[in-house]
Amino acid sequence: MKLTKKLGAEFIGTFWLVLGGCGSAVLAAAFPDVGIGLLGVSLAFGLTVLTMAYAIGHISGCHLNPAVSLGLWSGGRFPLAELGPYVAAQVAGGVAGAAILYVIATGQTGFDVTAGFASNGFGEHSPGGYSLTAALVTELVMTFMFLMIILGATDQRAPTGFAPIAIGLGLTLIHLISIPITNTSVNPARSTGVALFQGSWAISQLWLFWLAPLGGALLAGLCYRWFEAED
Amino acid sequence: MKLTKKLGAEFIGTFWLVLGGCGSAVLAAAFPDVGIGLLGVSLAFGLTVLTMAYAIGHISGCHLNPAVSLGLWSGGRFPLAELGPYVAAQVAGGVAGAAILYVIATGQTGFDVTAGFASNGFGEHSPGGYSLTAALVTELVMTFMFLMIILGATDQRAPTGFAPIAIGLGLTLIHLISIPITNTSVNPARSTGVALFQGSWAISQLWLFWLAPLGGALLAGLCYRWFEAED
Amino acid sequence: MKLTKKLGAEFIGTFWLVLGGCGSAVLAAAFPDVGIGLLGVSLAFGLTVLTMAYAIGHISGCHLNPAVSLGLWSGGRFPLAELGPYVAAQVAGGVAGAAILYVIATGQTGFDVTAGFASNGFGEHSPGGYSLTAALVTELVMTFMFLMIILGATDQRAPTGFAPIAIGLGLTLIHLISIPITNTSVNPARSTGVALFQGSWAISQLWLFWLAPLGGALLAGLCYRWFEAED
Amino acid sequence: MKLTKKLGAEFIGTFWLVLGGCGSAVLAAAFPDVGIGLLGVSLAFGLTVLTMAYAIGHISGCHLNPAVSLGLWSGGRFPLAELGPYVAAQVAGGVAGAAILYVIATGQTGFDVTAGFASNGFGEHSPGGYSLTAALVTELVMTFMFLMIILGATDQRAPTGFAPIAIGLGLTLIHLISIPITNTSVNPARSTGVALFQGSWAISQLWLFWLAPLGGALLAGLCYRWFEAED
Repeated sequence: MKLTKKLGAEFIGTFWLVLGGCGSAVLAAAFPDVGIGLLGVSLAFGLTVLTMAYAIGHISGCHLNPAVSLGLWSGGRFPLAELGPYVAAQVAGGVAGAAILYVIATGQTGFDVTAGFASNGFGEHSPGGYSLTAALVTELVMTFMFLMIILGATDQRAPTGFAPIAIGLGLTLIHLISIPITNTSVNPARSTGVALFQGSWAISQLWLFWLAPLGGALLAGLCYRWFEAED
Repeated sequence: MKLTKKLGAEFIGTFWLVLGGCGSAVLAAAFPDVGIGLLGVSLAFGLTVLTMAYAIGHISGCHLNPAVSLGLWSGGRFPLAELGPYVAAQVAGGVAGAAILYVIATGQTGFDVTAGFASNGFGEHSPGGYSLTAALVTELVMTFMFLMIILGATDQRAPTGFAPIAIGLGLTLIHLISIPITNTSVNPARSTGVALFQGSWAISQLWLFWLAPLGGALLAGLCYRWFEAED
Repeated sequence: MKLTKKLGAEFIGTFWLVLGGCGSAVLAAAFPDVGIGLLGVSLAFGLTVLTMAYAIGHISGCHLNPAVSLGLWSGGRFPLAELGPYVAAQVAGGVAGAAILYVIATGQTGFDVTAGFASNGFGEHSPGGYSLTAALVTELVMTFMFLMIILGATDQRAPTGFAPIAIGLGLTLIHLISIPITNTSVNPARSTGVALFQGSWAISQLWLFWLAPLGGALLAGLCYRWFEAED
Repeated sequence: MKLTKKLGAEFIGTFWLVLGGCGSAVLAAAFPDVGIGLLGVSLAFGLTVLTMAYAIGHISGCHLNPAVSLGLWSGGRFPLAELGPYVAAQVAGGVAGAAILYVIATGQTGFDVTAGFASNGFGEHSPGGYSLTAALVTELVMTFMFLMIILGATDQRAPTGFAPIAIGLGLTLIHLISIPITNTSVNPARSTGVALFQGSWAISQLWLFWLAPLGGALLAGLCYRWFEAED
């Protein structure tokens, strides 16, 4: 498979992750009386990954997330040479997803993008008012476990074909736990895409949503190598 | 497999999609205190496709949707000669599903079919009051992504047997995002089935729910061909 | 496999269906503020079948429902000689599940079994006040489609191993649509189990929840034979 | 596979079960307006097991629960020699998961760990005020059925690769039924992990959440042997 096609797949997949995940949050979570709530948003984020993993997994591996690409590299599953291009395609896809969401959301009178636009935050911008420390621990541990699920479920010894279910529903689970803390990132491309449209505090807090997910992913890759090593 | 049996399967499957999806919306979404909400409706639409894809996928391919048949044709997976009969069977099944739903729903005193009957709409008939432009973009992009999921998950290189899960839950995801915009169509047969019973505005807005899904599907078929092409 | 073990499996499975499905309705659906609602109950019913189909499918086929056994017979998949014993084991399991649920539910002060105990009903005992006709049509059509899913997903041409997912989530879907109409039966053993404890109206309305599911299942078996017949 | 790696996997997996399951309950269940409720918590518990079963099933078998290890032993599937080390790793992982949850939860002003911290209880500490008898019956029967699902779905005659779905969603189902009774344990390691932080009544009621799950699991192992025996 040529790199161009891989990058096209990563672009479309991350576009879908941001449009679907953040879109469900912005458009449907708090719809009067019958809104989907945080449970619906959690399901939506997970299903963007589940659907794309079956649709483009055979093209690009379906990372859709700079932390995933980094963790797969530190776990010895992904070449360093493709890391930069993958991350660039993911960020571009995330921004494109946020742009289409912006077009749709502004079709309703009174929409205010600066109110949040599903951006990630901590302290006064945490949905539940959680501290920077809680946010840092949450994003680090959640991304670590996300990569453990990915590395384990795509291990040659795991059942074939089921990894997209484990990984997609793993992302759903992570959102079920941690939306109140940081609005859940575990994905710098997702955070960047919407932060650019929110335009103020989301950009100034963006550093944490690159640092913590990348750190957690890096550790997970090293940790899973121990499980794989010959006894 | 004879065409008659394929068309019978498409009829029953689209019947189920409209009865199950629109039925959950009309009968259960806003049930007092314990209603299933938009999350339940999203799940119901997706499960009609998931269940039918396992039940009749080996008979007709389980399209249940004129946009899906068109997108599979533009993607080089479906013969033009069967396109017309498939679409006719799907629309007939959708109308039949809406008819049974009408019989059931009118078993409750005070039921008013003109209030909506789960029809799709924009502007003043959008659930969240979204504009025609937002509706057009939403239906176009959602159907495009729906077909990308279908074409990708049924690609020979994708894991065997899992496509119904990816496609069904993909339709759930699309509803989680877009019910507030248009009540979610991505399927002209589903829109037509209930619009005939609503009888007024739903019919006059029906053009958009043929145009946008068919356009999005056509583009997706062409786009996926690029991913499939030899390097 | 000896018939004794098959009947033991059907007993345990139907026990689980009633304890899990009706249990979630009685104990958790309307829990203050965080109750699982009709969506949670729908999921619970489906998951009793999904879990048992993987656990005991290789022992008894996991029917758990007289209508399923009858529909499999009319579809040419199940011997008439085992129909009676299967139905007896299913009804016994359903009653046992309701009995354990009764023991648990009465552990809360003020519990009133006559208030419903998740029984099925129509007219003034329909959750949404739906008529006898609506109830009859609903139970007939829902059971017909349930058997179509079962017969299709266990067809030799369908993907191997996925039938429990299609069938279990099919039952979830049926509940998402039809709890407001009849509290959803499609299963005479489930209806009988709890009706005996409710003790009054649920027993006098029980005939419909044998008649309509058995009728719908019988028709589905005949219908699927047409799809299977050599062209 | 060396025992050290198996124990490392059990530690991480049980860490995830407590952090994810109890975390969703403590952090997100009652979030204002859009909280995930008992349905979201039920899904979260199940998904911790589903994700870990795909990620580490090939390393340790993914028990994550002393009752599961005991039931697999009584069912003839697990060596007695590894029972002690497995239980120790599970309890340690559960405590570690509760500790990280404590760090995160205290990042919100006003958090009170003694209010419950997702601990299991009966009588006045049952979420719905259920009696000790109801709690005992519930935990015994639920763990019995959990092990029946596990033993059945991992039987050589069951479809390959699907057991994590059946087992994970089986745990979801168990929570959908029984959170109102005991807050649902069926897992002594999960109960112990959070009870140590709650610090008072949860510790004094902890005996039931060792006794009943272990008893139910022991019985299930013996029962499933009967289904497996040569006729």
